[in-house]
Amino acid sequence: MKIAGSTSLEDLPRICPLLSREGNQRYGATETRVVEVGSVHFGGGRPVVIAGPCAVESREQTLAVAEAVRAAGADMLRGGAYKPRTSPHDFQGLGDEGLEILCLAREATGLPIVTEVMDVRLVDKVAEYADMLQVGSRNMQNYPLLKEVGRVGKPVLLKRGMAASLCEWLGAAEYIAAEGNYDIVLCERGIKAYPSGEYSRYILDLNVIPAVKLHTFLPIIVDPSHATGVASMVEPASRAAIEFGSEGLIIEVAADSPGQAKPRCDAAQAIDPKTLQRIVNFIITRAGVLLENALAQAFSAQRNGSARHTITSEVV
Amino acid sequence: MKIAGSTSLEDLPRICPLLSREGNQRYGATETRVVEVGSVHFGGGRPVVIAGPCAVESREQTLAVAEAVRAAGADMLRGGAYKPRTSPHDFQGLGDEGLEILCLAREATGLPIVTEVMDVRLVDKVAEYADMLQVGSRNMQNYPLLKEVGRVGKPVLLKRGMAASLCEWLGAAEYIAAEGNYDIVLCERGIKAYPSGEYSRYILDLNVIPAVKLHTFLPIIVDPSHATGVASMVEPASRAAIEFGSEGLIIEVAADSPGQAKPRCDAAQAIDPKTLQRIVNFIITRAGVLLENALAQAFSAQRNGSARHTITSEVV
Amino acid sequence: MKIAGSTSLEDLPRICPLLSREGNQRYGATETRVVEVGSVHFGGGRPVVIAGPCAVESREQTLAVAEAVRAAGADMLRGGAYKPRTSPHDFQGLGDEGLEILCLAREATGLPIVTEVMDVRLVDKVAEYADMLQVGSRNMQNYPLLKEVGRVGKPVLLKRGMAASLCEWLGAAEYIAAEGNYDIVLCERGIKAYPSGEYSRYILDLNVIPAVKLHTFLPIIVDPSHATGVASMVEPASRAAIEFGSEGLIIEVAADSPGQAKPRCDAAQAIDPKTLQRIVNFIITRAGVLLENALAQAFSAQRNGSARHTITSEVV
Amino acid sequence: MKIAGSTSLEDLPRICPLLSREGNQRYGATETRVVEVGSVHFGGGRPVVIAGPCAVESREQTLAVAEAVRAAGADMLRGGAYKPRTSPHDFQGLGDEGLEILCLAREATGLPIVTEVMDVRLVDKVAEYADMLQVGSRNMQNYPLLKEVGRVGKPVLLKRGMAASLCEWLGAAEYIAAEGNYDIVLCERGIKAYPSGEYSRYILDLNVIPAVKLHTFLPIIVDPSHATGVASMVEPASRAAIEFGSEGLIIEVAADSPGQAKPRCDAAQAIDPKTLQRIVNFIITRAGVLLENALAQAFSAQRNGSARHTITSEVV
Repeated sequence: MKIAGSTSLEDLPRICPLLSREGNQRYGATETRVVEVGSVHFGGGRPVVIAGPCAVESREQTLAVAEAVRAAGADMLRGGAYKPRTSPHDFQGLGDEGLEILCLAREATGLPIVTEVMDVRLVDKVAEYADMLQVGSRNMQNYPLLKEVGRVGKPVLLKRGMAASLCEWLGAAEYIAAEGNYDIVLCERGIKAYPSGEYSRYILDLNVIPAVKLHTFLPIIVDPSHATGVASMVEPASRAAIEFGSEGLIIEVAADSPGQAKPRCDAAQAIDPKTLQRIVNFIITRAGVLLENALAQAFSAQRNGSARHTITSEVV
Repeated sequence: MKIAGSTSLEDLPRICPLLSREGNQRYGATETRVVEVGSVHFGGGRPVVIAGPCAVESREQTLAVAEAVRAAGADMLRGGAYKPRTSPHDFQGLGDEGLEILCLAREATGLPIVTEVMDVRLVDKVAEYADMLQVGSRNMQNYPLLKEVGRVGKPVLLKRGMAASLCEWLGAAEYIAAEGNYDIVLCERGIKAYPSGEYSRYILDLNVIPAVKLHTFLPIIVDPSHATGVASMVEPASRAAIEFGSEGLIIEVAADSPGQAKPRCDAAQAIDPKTLQRIVNFIITRAGVLLENALAQAFSAQRNGSARHTITSEVV
Repeated sequence: MKIAGSTSLEDLPRICPLLSREGNQRYGATETRVVEVGSVHFGGGRPVVIAGPCAVESREQTLAVAEAVRAAGADMLRGGAYKPRTSPHDFQGLGDEGLEILCLAREATGLPIVTEVMDVRLVDKVAEYADMLQVGSRNMQNYPLLKEVGRVGKPVLLKRGMAASLCEWLGAAEYIAAEGNYDIVLCERGIKAYPSGEYSRYILDLNVIPAVKLHTFLPIIVDPSHATGVASMVEPASRAAIEFGSEGLIIEVAADSPGQAKPRCDAAQAIDPKTLQRIVNFIITRAGVLLENALAQAFSAQRNGSARHTITSEVV
Repeated sequence: MKIAGSTSLEDLPRICPLLSREGNQRYGATETRVVEVGSVHFGGGRPVVIAGPCAVESREQTLAVAEAVRAAGADMLRGGAYKPRTSPHDFQGLGDEGLEILCLAREATGLPIVTEVMDVRLVDKVAEYADMLQVGSRNMQNYPLLKEVGRVGKPVLLKRGMAASLCEWLGAAEYIAAEGNYDIVLCERGIKAYPSGEYSRYILDLNVIPAVKLHTFLPIIVDPSHATGVASMVEPASRAAIEFGSEGLIIEVAADSPGQAKPRCDAAQAIDPKTLQRIVNFIITRAGVLLENALAQAFSAQRNGSARHTITSEVV
């Protein structure tokens, strides 16, 4: 019984001749293609931390959160100017004004910005403001949008659709690469499964990280905010993601302060700056521990006569 | 533990004040708002049959299939000019030429056409050619596209996302209605679940039909082609959908003839015109049986002294 | 990347040499092995209707429901003496007393009984009372229980686990057949997927019916009560199941009467006897319509010179 | 539209009056009830490592793997004497002989043993041999079995069903507690979702760990072997689980040696002893790092005048 549209990873070289390791022999079996956003390097060895508010709600709010995440050690700022909401009657984002505010935040903090673009007609504009364009999970298979962000050539953060198979996800990335733009960072953000809504928003699927690394050279990060939907789960999810090999995190942060209104969207999953700090510290500490281990192994190997010992591979 | 973004049907009046029965009191508890596409009435009592090729591949192919489906008794013609493919290297559709061919087919057969539009920038153009615009499941939450098809005012066939909850689906429809366009027909086309790919492409979720009828006045049809992905399952799935109260079907048909190449997409789920004919006959026969039953009950009620007896309610 | 335990239908001959059509060549490609429970024949051409209360709660209640379902045209009686409950603090069933009551109901109505057995140590006892043993979905892979019901040789109703693949389901049946007992009737009862709980209890997976018929000769029926969890959905689900080729239905019925307490379990999905009657009438009417069509085609074929025309194949 | 059987965590106090924090006020809001298996303490602060072969296949094999896991630092030995297999024609385990071999392994290594029991009639026997009884995911809702392992009073490792909600899982544990046996350790082992089989066996659901800790005082561990089904994913999954707060791990290990046959089941997910060693080292190192941090914070707090500072809470 032949099933139409049925794909498996055996089909990947055919679906993704440009992005699959099997299709594109240019990269070694374990090499990750580094994606640069200014001085931020995805896949460069040190996990990247992107943090910021769910939505740009006001100048004060965004500047406050941006400063807080900078102080906590984040590498990049996120913030939504155009928000995908379940209902059209909910806050849709500040639009153009949101982009302006993000730029002010970048000026003030030095943090590069990534923001979501939903509308093909706005890709050029958003590309003028942002350092990196995000394609949200609801648009993972919005093929005109993928072609457009491919064409405009800015680095792209491609979120996994909430029910996307690995084949479909890499197929979506292939649309971007087919325009000549290989600066794609994948982002696992939780999938829909039967427990969704019982104790967490989605199900964090960390198994996909090694699967991605096996089949493509694109870097992959994790969004522990949407993947859990529960603020108290974000920190453990972040650490777990790093231990699974995630090359970064993108996290929603709110800076609650007296008089400050609660965020207008996804408040229940936003963490505070102190928690973000602990996540950053975890990454730094972990890198230190790995470096120690690597050095120890190098010396031990030296003593045992095997002179050549690579340290860098141990750091990630 | 509060979960961000968690919605249930209790939230529907808030999410969909325009389209939920609870939010919009204009329609009775069981009334369906009829959507007219020319002389075709969705929700008008008789299930609508939309049929045609998966993709418009050539003039000969499309005219042949169009004639075959007309002869089989279909009410409308489907056919893709812009095809959403997992890989950018696969046939993307004939684009503008495809729209022209669909028009020729309409001229030749008298069948109104529904075709998918994926790109917000092409909505106006496609609306000139098609009688009804289809928003595909991969674009169910492409909000700029929803706003655009809402604005252009043509009837819309809104396919359910393959992992969309009922709240999300109706929320998507609300984007269209918020532009003043209530001519929306919902389409269940199978959801992703763990068996997807073992013996069928998706899982046909017929339970959603009565749920839709309970919560909104929009008509709903079923796509048994994608929901099964297996040609031999399309006919039973069609009958099952009608028995569950579906107000119509949208079915992929291929007219295999000597020398004709196999369809370039989804060949394994396309049925032949004879099978389509049997599906149409089923609908006709069923309407006849229901009418007989209704008349019998009316006479029986009359004999028993209850003079007023509605027949029309029995026919659907 | 080899995945442990990964199976597909290609593995079926290996997993089920006794029950797969490919493994056991004894049955034709489309032949169903009839399972007899007294004079009730599963797979014999006419869909079997099993109905009754969710649980045996009292003698009065069970006798009343049994009489009502007999009058409505059911072929067999269901009723739980041992109930699988989410919590140990909920009503667990009347146990032995429940079995006695079921026998009284059989005496009074002539309906054969099917009841669930959960405990391997009770298989012999339950087999003395019941005409057919049900293995519930929560026990689909309770291998000691499967071996036991296989050994005792009574006909078995094997419910699909709520997340069982077709391979796993047929593998479970193979345990029964391996004991020499081929009198197995499969029962689809809804699967767990992301919408479970939003508008229905499970997702009715009718696509599995033709898949079952393709791969094995065992008959298959449907439980529309658990598959929907909503009383008003049971009737359409029943008709849909029949249209998809289901060889029967197992339905929960409650006979509400003044003074009668509401059922102690699953009240929200129980239908009343009038609704059951309509379901039975649907099956009868449908058989009549199919017979008419078959006769018409036979005569037409005769007139066209093809003398040999099988009628029976049209009846199901 | 009321849905039968629909539960949410709001129902937990009703479903689990004995095991839910809300129902059983005896334990503090964050306290974990320690389960002792000999000198092994689940929930005692240091993650427990259980390791061993998937199945007991021979005396040589089991003794070899047992010694290897002991040397690697495991706390307990696992090994299946009775194996749940998809097909009855596959290796079912050595049964009684398997239990004997496990005891020999315990004698040789000092490691307590946990092994799966599937058959209610064998609970007493298995309880004589094993230090802890495992109820497998396929039997999570085998209520007679749960009552039996509750009654026999040995510590129980309760694996989550592959499609069990948190309510159902804790409801199953409640059956054990209702017999007076609170020595229950929960085990997350991956759930079924749409990607199952594409790149991993199941989907590891780590979000459930904090949810468990919020709602009950039972300790919870993770099985990264079945949850991934891919040997190379087991180590990262183990670390991720620990970072998410898992109180232990249960891991399949094979000791490949020249001449040794490949394991007869689940070979693709078994890791080697060196990998197990790294996992154990990770746990040790991590405990050390946490202790350092805790001491640093304690001194800092002391200097700042807040004399009372708990260290132990930081270690886990």
